[in-house]
Amino acid sequence: MDVQFVAINYIRCRPDYRARFEELFRSRAHAIDRMPGFGGMRVLRPQKPDEPYLVVSFWESEAAFRAWVGSPEFLEGHQRGFDDLRQARERGEEPPMSSEFITYDVITQ
Amino acid sequence: MDVQFVAINYIRCRPDYRARFEELFRSRAHAIDRMPGFGGMRVLRPQKPDEPYLVVSFWESEAAFRAWVGSPEFLEGHQRGFDDLRQARERGEEPPMSSEFITYDVITQ
Repeated sequence: MDVQFVAINYIRCRPDYRARFEELFRSRAHAIDRMPGFGGMRVLRPQKPDEPYLVVSFWESEAAFRAWVGSPEFLEGHQRGFDDLRQARERGEEPPMSSEFITYDVITQ
Repeated sequence: MDVQFVAINYIRCRPDYRARFEELFRSRAHAIDRMPGFGGMRVLRPQKPDEPYLVVSFWESEAAFRAWVGSPEFLEGHQRGFDDLRQARERGEEPPMSSEFITYDVITQ
């Protein structure tokens, strides 16, 4: 696949949530893998602990990425993480993680 | 190749240097491609202009990455960029770009 677009989700975890966060990705639903234009992903643990985790996904086009964000597969793939956030809110705790998507065009390989 | 390690060079460019920066990568020397354990790279332009460019390289191991950083190929691949930095310094200008490497272990794909 000709990857033209990359989305990176920069995720900061509370220290006590890191093991759970990594486990969620190691046992991920693979719902995203069914999306047209999906070119793979990698989940990256920073070697400096004060940096965020990176969830990097590769796409044929920005449109393919946007279609995923609005899809049932997006909700299915994030179900357990969203549940963790909801439960923390219901217990009056601060969120165990926060995330920010930054999007990129591929210049060259 | 089984990619276990990722290095990202976060590069901030002066606005007037961006076109030159992109051109350097589009016409890159491909010296890195000769390194053992090199698993590819992508150069990413942020869609938000205040974010840095990302030069993402994929490696079989951290040792393979460290070997590249200390190699003649590293100097060869960065020659024109290093020259630009030196010339700006000689003219008493601020550097046209600044960079920071952040390194990552791959949790999962």
